[in-house]
Amino acid sequence: MKILVVNPNSTKAMTDKAVVAARRVAHPDTEILGATGTGPASIEGHFDEAMSVPGLLAEVAAAEKAGIDGIVVACFDDPGIGACREVASGPVIGLCEASVKAASLLSTSFSVVTTLPRSIPVIERLIHGYGLSHLCRRVRSAAIPVLALEEEGSDAREKVRDEILRAIAEDKCEAVVLGCAGMADLTDWLSEETGVPVIDGVTVAVKMVEALVGAGLKTSKISGYATPNEK
Amino acid sequence: MKILVVNPNSTKAMTDKAVVAARRVAHPDTEILGATGTGPASIEGHFDEAMSVPGLLAEVAAAEKAGIDGIVVACFDDPGIGACREVASGPVIGLCEASVKAASLLSTSFSVVTTLPRSIPVIERLIHGYGLSHLCRRVRSAAIPVLALEEEGSDAREKVRDEILRAIAEDKCEAVVLGCAGMADLTDWLSEETGVPVIDGVTVAVKMVEALVGAGLKTSKISGYATPNEK
Amino acid sequence: MKILVVNPNSTKAMTDKAVVAARRVAHPDTEILGATGTGPASIEGHFDEAMSVPGLLAEVAAAEKAGIDGIVVACFDDPGIGACREVASGPVIGLCEASVKAASLLSTSFSVVTTLPRSIPVIERLIHGYGLSHLCRRVRSAAIPVLALEEEGSDAREKVRDEILRAIAEDKCEAVVLGCAGMADLTDWLSEETGVPVIDGVTVAVKMVEALVGAGLKTSKISGYATPNEK
Amino acid sequence: MKILVVNPNSTKAMTDKAVVAARRVAHPDTEILGATGTGPASIEGHFDEAMSVPGLLAEVAAAEKAGIDGIVVACFDDPGIGACREVASGPVIGLCEASVKAASLLSTSFSVVTTLPRSIPVIERLIHGYGLSHLCRRVRSAAIPVLALEEEGSDAREKVRDEILRAIAEDKCEAVVLGCAGMADLTDWLSEETGVPVIDGVTVAVKMVEALVGAGLKTSKISGYATPNEK
Amino acid sequence: MKILVVNPNSTKAMTDKAVVAARRVAHPDTEILGATGTGPASIEGHFDEAMSVPGLLAEVAAAEKAGIDGIVVACFDDPGIGACREVASGPVIGLCEASVKAASLLSTSFSVVTTLPRSIPVIERLIHGYGLSHLCRRVRSAAIPVLALEEEGSDAREKVRDEILRAIAEDKCEAVVLGCAGMADLTDWLSEETGVPVIDGVTVAVKMVEALVGAGLKTSKISGYATPNEK
Amino acid sequence: MKILVVNPNSTKAMTDKAVVAARRVAHPDTEILGATGTGPASIEGHFDEAMSVPGLLAEVAAAEKAGIDGIVVACFDDPGIGACREVASGPVIGLCEASVKAASLLSTSFSVVTTLPRSIPVIERLIHGYGLSHLCRRVRSAAIPVLALEEEGSDAREKVRDEILRAIAEDKCEAVVLGCAGMADLTDWLSEETGVPVIDGVTVAVKMVEALVGAGLKTSKISGYATPNEK
Repeated sequence: MKILVVNPNSTKAMTDKAVVAARRVAHPDTEILGATGTGPASIEGHFDEAMSVPGLLAEVAAAEKAGIDGIVVACFDDPGIGACREVASGPVIGLCEASVKAASLLSTSFSVVTTLPRSIPVIERLIHGYGLSHLCRRVRSAAIPVLALEEEGSDAREKVRDEILRAIAEDKCEAVVLGCAGMADLTDWLSEETGVPVIDGVTVAVKMVEALVGAGLKTSKISGYATPNEK
Repeated sequence: MKILVVNPNSTKAMTDKAVVAARRVAHPDTEILGATGTGPASIEGHFDEAMSVPGLLAEVAAAEKAGIDGIVVACFDDPGIGACREVASGPVIGLCEASVKAASLLSTSFSVVTTLPRSIPVIERLIHGYGLSHLCRRVRSAAIPVLALEEEGSDAREKVRDEILRAIAEDKCEAVVLGCAGMADLTDWLSEETGVPVIDGVTVAVKMVEALVGAGLKTSKISGYATPNEK
Repeated sequence: MKILVVNPNSTKAMTDKAVVAARRVAHPDTEILGATGTGPASIEGHFDEAMSVPGLLAEVAAAEKAGIDGIVVACFDDPGIGACREVASGPVIGLCEASVKAASLLSTSFSVVTTLPRSIPVIERLIHGYGLSHLCRRVRSAAIPVLALEEEGSDAREKVRDEILRAIAEDKCEAVVLGCAGMADLTDWLSEETGVPVIDGVTVAVKMVEALVGAGLKTSKISGYATPNEK
Repeated sequence: MKILVVNPNSTKAMTDKAVVAARRVAHPDTEILGATGTGPASIEGHFDEAMSVPGLLAEVAAAEKAGIDGIVVACFDDPGIGACREVASGPVIGLCEASVKAASLLSTSFSVVTTLPRSIPVIERLIHGYGLSHLCRRVRSAAIPVLALEEEGSDAREKVRDEILRAIAEDKCEAVVLGCAGMADLTDWLSEETGVPVIDGVTVAVKMVEALVGAGLKTSKISGYATPNEK
Repeated sequence: MKILVVNPNSTKAMTDKAVVAARRVAHPDTEILGATGTGPASIEGHFDEAMSVPGLLAEVAAAEKAGIDGIVVACFDDPGIGACREVASGPVIGLCEASVKAASLLSTSFSVVTTLPRSIPVIERLIHGYGLSHLCRRVRSAAIPVLALEEEGSDAREKVRDEILRAIAEDKCEAVVLGCAGMADLTDWLSEETGVPVIDGVTVAVKMVEALVGAGLKTSKISGYATPNEK
Repeated sequence: MKILVVNPNSTKAMTDKAVVAARRVAHPDTEILGATGTGPASIEGHFDEAMSVPGLLAEVAAAEKAGIDGIVVACFDDPGIGACREVASGPVIGLCEASVKAASLLSTSFSVVTTLPRSIPVIERLIHGYGLSHLCRRVRSAAIPVLALEEEGSDAREKVRDEILRAIAEDKCEAVVLGCAGMADLTDWLSEETGVPVIDGVTVAVKMVEALVGAGLKTSKISGYATPNEK
């Protein structure tokens, strides 16, 4: 099975990290392909998200042509998922949807820890659309820029851990979702430090796409996700 | 006051129609500017919508620079509204949000009549996000292509009227929202033929932007709609 | 266009203030008429609200007879709106509905600051009915009596400002709705002091009625808001 | 224990009928007192409802002074309940709230059969506020005027039965709530004819008030239902 | 009328206490029967709850055979209510459903104070299912083991009172529901100490069953609660 | 990885069928273990469900002791899932939760086709709890007994196909969930006949458990799903 992990922002280092995270958990017979968008260097808010989508769709269309089986959109804002589902025949999953649905299978409530405050309302709106607001205690920000996760010597990981501990203490949540694509390598350490399931989007999205493809399922093509009309 | 009516698809005829509709209801001292996107010729589904947004944002950014007071995004799928709100300082409203909120002020329930079946789930999801699902009886399609509304000799308007009559009879709705940018010139005739308020998105969006600007209100800039971060 | 601003309580000074606020933002060709109810001196809770409605309806009926185009019910508890919509042919809007719907067009979340604690559950219930609970962070009280806003030397305005600052800090809201009819003259100052859109109900309700009338829309008369049955 | 059954409309015959229904089910040691409002002859829509409330509140206040233990507001539109709860110290229940909450204890879903179509949106809005929309299959009208239930030779009861049978067949509901104060004497016959619990509001409201009073419970007085402020 | 109060856990002392509480409020002509399950000694979480249900159902079936009129399941987790409703012909009510519905009739919002933290998500899920999440401010735990309520010299009752006072101060709730079967004897004292209605599940469940039986109502048998199929 | 597929009813043939379905889609390195409950021969309603849970929990506890990695509860009513999650350390998923969450990843709306009408409200309540009511068009019954699926010569499969076709035509759903454990072998045929994704619970539940285990995730143990308390 071939799965595309497509990073809609244009920072190749983040793609590489996501691909590493994906390969770490994928089955040996799953081939993980990486692709990088042509949009902004990081996705911080609605504008960045919107600007990243055409490049993302080009990658999805190319992969579809090449016979891809399923697609992970490696961004927590779930940009362009509906559009990707129109273009692809296999399953397409974004990080937020994958991880909050995973959290709902492992706990009675969860909180999300994201990077920047401006992403909070974006994520809240996604979770409302996914129908899981009643299980989401709070969307929190560790107040770190997305790219800080890539910097040497940054204390970003400690900030994330501390925010998780605050989430457990204040929100009484039972699991924590990492609201950013770049934290996959931290989950084991964070889970050990905090005692709760810490869920990384890339990891669970890859496994869920594997699961749906393995179950023989594809995206429905009869209405909302039908192939785009020819013009 | 200057209001931009920006059609995110690339069909100039639809822009012109929207501008005419806007000018018909705008105050004499409101200047209506029109702009046309660079995306698909019509917006039929998620893919078309996503592809239209960068061109839309370019128009919004240009208008913002030129001192626009408020913006109407003249498409019923409300593409890129969050991104536009980050770019613009004045109010930005899409047709779906404007018209379902107007309907909620004039009736206890409404149905939506759109063009193509594939737009139904897009609109349902928007209305869920706007919190008005409990007032929306049903989103219906008159099963006509978007561009048919522009064609001479098409029976599109009769199809729309008949679908409205079915909505009243079957859904027991009290108002009908036209789920498409190109029907503004039909509202008076449709309202007379059917006996209910028939709400056109361009019309009410223009008036609502006028209202918010006239009230001295602007888009909040402290978090979700803050100006895009410099990269 | 003629718009009636009807204050359902019997305090003429509040009517006058609302009319001034309305005229400040109305278009030059909109005539603002004021009317005062015969109910309690202020509306603080369900009982006061209920007692104010018959007097309110009498004013609405008189205005309807005299050919009014639209009506603003100048009280934040939105008393008798459904009944007014049965009596009037044009649009009728209350302050809470107008301002929370405006807030939803300008921000991803808002809080409400009202006067007395006992109004909090009334307003929460209204917002639940309007479908906007998911965007409303919190309804807060500045703990001031309604009529204190009219008193010389009261520190009511500072209390309101401080409550708004607390709302921004604690609720992470992006806009604030003033939950009272008597604060229209404070919005500019409050917005400057706090950095967020501060929304006054009279102001936005007048502009929204203007917008709906200007769009040629009237209240639906086929079911829920049909003219009262003759007895 | 003394319970007031107050009919907010001014048709004494309906009060008498409600009192008879109440006495039929009340405990022998419960004294049922009847009172009639000064509003419209029947409550058909928002306007009638609003006009009935001051008279209703006067009866409630008088009964409160005389030491009433609990109050049933004998109208299915639940007029002025919040205001009555401010005035009364004991429990106050309206017919809609009592009967849909009873239905939710006896079935997994229910439909409501009311008299006039114009009451449908009023009842839907109440049920939304009570949080039971997910259990309410549909609010239906048997298309009979409220007062027809009082008329000799009317076929109103057959119409109600037929609508219940349609509700069971089409809505797959498991219980039916009678959406009108005047049908208490029909429940046994309707239940036998249709095979489902048929719930009359007066009956269950009286029993629920008895239950709450018997449990030693009173209306909370610390905020939303606090005694009206002195002016 | 005969009402069974069945305690699904196997601690006879808790049954006795519930029966005493039930008899304290039941009408003189209501016979209260007690029964004790064969499950765990206390119900603390999903596992205990599940293990208690077969014993509970055996008691319900026996009582049904013996002609019981209605049933109270004396546990706040509402275990096996749907199954009991299939077995019984009369009304069946659990403590959580009874008390949150009672709270919704007496206040505009309530909080729940339960014993152990692990019961919080169980209760939150129940309240979500009952449709009352929008009125429930918070489910809190007084952090006491269920059986401590039975122990001499325990400070459990003071802990409960203090948690109620915190609920009023922090949650701004207007009523408090006691989220445990064993606190019925504390309600009067707690209500006096705190100034809000304090609602005990056994008390209100008994009275609600009395009310429904007294209204002549039984559980619907046409679908969701139909008698179990013979195998 | 070892996954237990536990059928909570006592019909060994259904277990075998589920195990076959599970093995058909599991990875070669996943070992599928089967277990059969001691409850009713089939689960048709709340009573059967409740009676099946202790036997189910015994199997889960035994498997947990033996080091199982994850568990599928092979019944569409999701019996005892919370209790299983307390007992197990790995992920536990029921068929309804697995398949409706899968459907939400592949389509914008789905319907469920179950066997008996009495299961409809059970499933509706589950979906409400999972937060997906807004995507579920309708829960339908093909009106066949659960065990008919096992009988030679039954026309059960044609009935299911016809109900799916009706769901597509009438509900405008884009995917169909099979609301029963015994239809796994029909999905390919049904999907071909109907043109939409047809989702079988066993299949997707096994793949989702594989996914969560493969992602290194376990059930949260800090509150709602903590190990049962010792008594």
